[in-house]
Amino acid sequence: MTLPQEFQDIAKRVNNWGRWGRDDEIGTLNLITDEVVRTAAAAVRSGRRVPLGLPLQQDGVQTGMIPGRVNPLHTMVAINLEIFGPGTVATNDDAVTMGLQAATHWDGLAHVSHGGRLYNGRPAGTVTAHGGAAFAGIEKIPSLVSRGVLLDVARARGEDRLEGTHAVGPEDLAAAEEMAGTRVRAGDIVLVRTGQIQHYLAGDKQAYAYPSPGLSLYAPEWFHERDVAAVADDTLTFEIFPPEVENLWMPVHALDLVEMGMLQGQNWNLEGLSEVCAEEGRYDFLLTATPEPFTGGTGAPVAPVAVL
Amino acid sequence: MTLPQEFQDIAKRVNNWGRWGRDDEIGTLNLITDEVVRTAAAAVRSGRRVPLGLPLQQDGVQTGMIPGRVNPLHTMVAINLEIFGPGTVATNDDAVTMGLQAATHWDGLAHVSHGGRLYNGRPAGTVTAHGGAAFAGIEKIPSLVSRGVLLDVARARGEDRLEGTHAVGPEDLAAAEEMAGTRVRAGDIVLVRTGQIQHYLAGDKQAYAYPSPGLSLYAPEWFHERDVAAVADDTLTFEIFPPEVENLWMPVHALDLVEMGMLQGQNWNLEGLSEVCAEEGRYDFLLTATPEPFTGGTGAPVAPVAVL
Amino acid sequence: MTLPQEFQDIAKRVNNWGRWGRDDEIGTLNLITDEVVRTAAAAVRSGRRVPLGLPLQQDGVQTGMIPGRVNPLHTMVAINLEIFGPGTVATNDDAVTMGLQAATHWDGLAHVSHGGRLYNGRPAGTVTAHGGAAFAGIEKIPSLVSRGVLLDVARARGEDRLEGTHAVGPEDLAAAEEMAGTRVRAGDIVLVRTGQIQHYLAGDKQAYAYPSPGLSLYAPEWFHERDVAAVADDTLTFEIFPPEVENLWMPVHALDLVEMGMLQGQNWNLEGLSEVCAEEGRYDFLLTATPEPFTGGTGAPVAPVAVL
Amino acid sequence: MTLPQEFQDIAKRVNNWGRWGRDDEIGTLNLITDEVVRTAAAAVRSGRRVPLGLPLQQDGVQTGMIPGRVNPLHTMVAINLEIFGPGTVATNDDAVTMGLQAATHWDGLAHVSHGGRLYNGRPAGTVTAHGGAAFAGIEKIPSLVSRGVLLDVARARGEDRLEGTHAVGPEDLAAAEEMAGTRVRAGDIVLVRTGQIQHYLAGDKQAYAYPSPGLSLYAPEWFHERDVAAVADDTLTFEIFPPEVENLWMPVHALDLVEMGMLQGQNWNLEGLSEVCAEEGRYDFLLTATPEPFTGGTGAPVAPVAVL
Repeated sequence: MTLPQEFQDIAKRVNNWGRWGRDDEIGTLNLITDEVVRTAAAAVRSGRRVPLGLPLQQDGVQTGMIPGRVNPLHTMVAINLEIFGPGTVATNDDAVTMGLQAATHWDGLAHVSHGGRLYNGRPAGTVTAHGGAAFAGIEKIPSLVSRGVLLDVARARGEDRLEGTHAVGPEDLAAAEEMAGTRVRAGDIVLVRTGQIQHYLAGDKQAYAYPSPGLSLYAPEWFHERDVAAVADDTLTFEIFPPEVENLWMPVHALDLVEMGMLQGQNWNLEGLSEVCAEEGRYDFLLTATPEPFTGGTGAPVAPVAVL
Repeated sequence: MTLPQEFQDIAKRVNNWGRWGRDDEIGTLNLITDEVVRTAAAAVRSGRRVPLGLPLQQDGVQTGMIPGRVNPLHTMVAINLEIFGPGTVATNDDAVTMGLQAATHWDGLAHVSHGGRLYNGRPAGTVTAHGGAAFAGIEKIPSLVSRGVLLDVARARGEDRLEGTHAVGPEDLAAAEEMAGTRVRAGDIVLVRTGQIQHYLAGDKQAYAYPSPGLSLYAPEWFHERDVAAVADDTLTFEIFPPEVENLWMPVHALDLVEMGMLQGQNWNLEGLSEVCAEEGRYDFLLTATPEPFTGGTGAPVAPVAVL
Repeated sequence: MTLPQEFQDIAKRVNNWGRWGRDDEIGTLNLITDEVVRTAAAAVRSGRRVPLGLPLQQDGVQTGMIPGRVNPLHTMVAINLEIFGPGTVATNDDAVTMGLQAATHWDGLAHVSHGGRLYNGRPAGTVTAHGGAAFAGIEKIPSLVSRGVLLDVARARGEDRLEGTHAVGPEDLAAAEEMAGTRVRAGDIVLVRTGQIQHYLAGDKQAYAYPSPGLSLYAPEWFHERDVAAVADDTLTFEIFPPEVENLWMPVHALDLVEMGMLQGQNWNLEGLSEVCAEEGRYDFLLTATPEPFTGGTGAPVAPVAVL
Repeated sequence: MTLPQEFQDIAKRVNNWGRWGRDDEIGTLNLITDEVVRTAAAAVRSGRRVPLGLPLQQDGVQTGMIPGRVNPLHTMVAINLEIFGPGTVATNDDAVTMGLQAATHWDGLAHVSHGGRLYNGRPAGTVTAHGGAAFAGIEKIPSLVSRGVLLDVARARGEDRLEGTHAVGPEDLAAAEEMAGTRVRAGDIVLVRTGQIQHYLAGDKQAYAYPSPGLSLYAPEWFHERDVAAVADDTLTFEIFPPEVENLWMPVHALDLVEMGMLQGQNWNLEGLSEVCAEEGRYDFLLTATPEPFTGGTGAPVAPVAVL
């Protein structure tokens, strides 16, 4: 089976292989220049900070639908341990086991392949069990700080939360951009709000997981035209799920990660940010969202913060 | 056994219990006001970003000296898995097990207790195996972004790396501050560089672990006077180890975390930052260092970035 | 709150503290003498072996009802890795994270306490985060091989599976023993079959978990009279759940583990054994069921086998 | 690179592919018939039981030499937790992360491949990250109970412990068999003692790991002739390490697991058994050694017990 022609055509148009050299492992993050960061810092006006990460806990967003992607198991290895004898300072120490893509995370560029290829044309076989991603592992990303723009699609449509069958396409993005009052620029990180995470926050993980609104097959080209550095949203699947085109599974993953070399973020809690942005009447900010640098990671947890 | 009088005296002077209310769980992070953050953003001039986190990997800084604090074990749960059938987009997925304080991390306020008390006088018994820290868990910290100041003690002393027996005291801090050319202010995050992490970077974990230079028993009072929000350094033990006063183990931990309610960071790689600061001739910057919000965590990994 | 008088009275009657010395850590396993084992070996007639363990897998019996008791997560750390160069022998290597009591397991004697006491009167506080059970850890059990007797309560009652509200009491045990045609003796390991595990085997974990038939508050005294070495059954909760006496939670755990010092096994698959025993017309056999010797373990997985 | 001719010749002679059908996944374990087990049970005379497993703990045999094969990390998820309210029965619960081949274990048949093939000619590619070994996973072994024979090579040679350069070959096995006073038969499990584990028991893990005596390239043919069901020894590497023939790494693994389809056990503590056998003047016994049935496992921990 091969992916349909429509997909192939889009793929060709958004492809960034070789754009930053054949050995490049960070893709569109190259678009975050020092200048972009200076501008991003200048976007800070009130100094308010809005956290976008979910707490990491056993009662997380995973339902077992994605095999092996386990919610964080927090365990203790020391509790009030007086290592140096009775009456001395006592320590607490903990350990965790979790899926790297289980909670609020970035998909690394090596998270998916298609046709046997990763970003920049590297063989899918460079991902192995004894080292993870040898190419484009998440640790190759030194930092991720840029201007963030919230495209609050739900609010722009006057909805609390998009329907599970809603594919967020170029018109949605454009409408939200217009509401945002700022043009998305090269190096920006775009946060797309669907409101879907309300299901999880209300305790209904199943409803959160599936069916889910999310990015449309036609969204990547919009991001490509604006030269966005990365995109994150507030869903488990990132793109609409089940997909718009029958049997075309995960096309957005393939376009973003493989063709464009653009990081994707999932399970970002954009509810608070939506309130603050509406309140302050602006939708851009400094975004700090450096993934935890797991060597060979095909994804990583992140604790993103918007600074307004 | 009780801790010596000298310790008790300092403890009394730096104590912040009740300062932000009896229910406060974040201590000196309260000092990071919106105004502080605005000033921090204004510190960005060149837009250069310097990552301060070590890669998270099996070959990490832990040697087994601290029981249960295991280096990250990265494993794969899916490699080029064509979930939806042959020829479809293929996914890679990974999982990790690690000590929360194993790599570049923040000690949470609940990481240590003394005399049966945590920060703000809460009973040490609020830390349990089935939920970790019920009080002052690391997830209570919504964000951690402020002005960072590098106190490059090694450089200020004209040394590559401090001796293993060097306790970094108020004079060292003052000298480095003078070299930095900026006064440490309320809400700042101070990064203290000893150069000790060079041992680990050169492949010698044992030398990195012990003996180690680090903060002196007399440093917390200096931080208290300046109303610092948090302190991190480039050692495994944070404070000098073995300690300056015989049998007075981990006094700085007790003063910082329990008495002051001030976060401590360890295993931060400050080598690159030292170069950049020296090059740019300034030692302050925007620091983004939000800990991963593990529910009940007594510490958490962090991927800090200095934005200059 | 204290446990009710009826419980206290039974507790007094079945108590074994001091019976094998004040320092004893294995309780009724002391009843498995060399002679008992010789007799057990003599029970082997056909040579048939029936495994009683469930496969250890992510799709295991845990539903999240018991916090922190996670199903096994199997991950790979090497796949076809040619460590010594291309064309050399290639290796596969795996790792697992799991709750020690998540699958087919033994509860160790330190699994529960009541009134601040473990088996043999030891303080509950001897269980810590930095070493687990210092007293009566599961690793103290050198081996567990004895005669096994299947008390097939469901079959004896002519039922496929006991109702969820059925508490297995002395009469049930006696009737099953009569059907078994052998008297339960000192040092025997008794396997009590309710049929409840059929729910899990049929894919319904929720029905398996709760409500569940299981041992009655009045069963331990029966086991005590016979001087049984250990008891296992085919349920998640071991004892009837919810309990027979309102607000008297886990009395059987307390009686077996704390008072008697008798190991309990859960999630044992007794379906195949029931068939074979009925077919062969006998219900005793050699049972091998040594727990994995986790140092400090308050329980451990086991791969039990009945040899007929 | 291909493996040398000598290896290929032996491989041809010991090959069991197809012997138990093309779909067979347990290899020489097929040799353990009911009759073999009856005879094994008849070998029990004194009723003494000797455990052969090492305690599972952080301070285990792994040194980091084998990447990803981590010693067991035991953690607590509940300590004296009164789930149902104050004064109720309190529970302790634990979790573990470990390499399946980290401690006393069986290598499953899918543990190694050569020339792209596993046992019975199956493709090496049947081992994946999302399910482990689809063919010949360790869970396919329903039970492992048979007659055990200790071939105490060290004792037969009058040595406490073999030299690190000693390859245990057919003559050694024959001499130990003669001392054992019983002929190794079809379906037996052979335990080969080198004494190497004394290093670990004395606290020297490095000396235990390497260099190590172990089975010779010429041993598998001896086992093949006797139609042994499985072989275990008291070393980390099973076979002599570094190998006898330069650049021929892990030939015994390839012959045993791939060609013969014969399980291998490592890190078995045979010190106590050696004493008991010498004392009782006999070297055969009932051996119970069923691996923990991890679905897809390419190996598994085991708690073996010899019953004499």
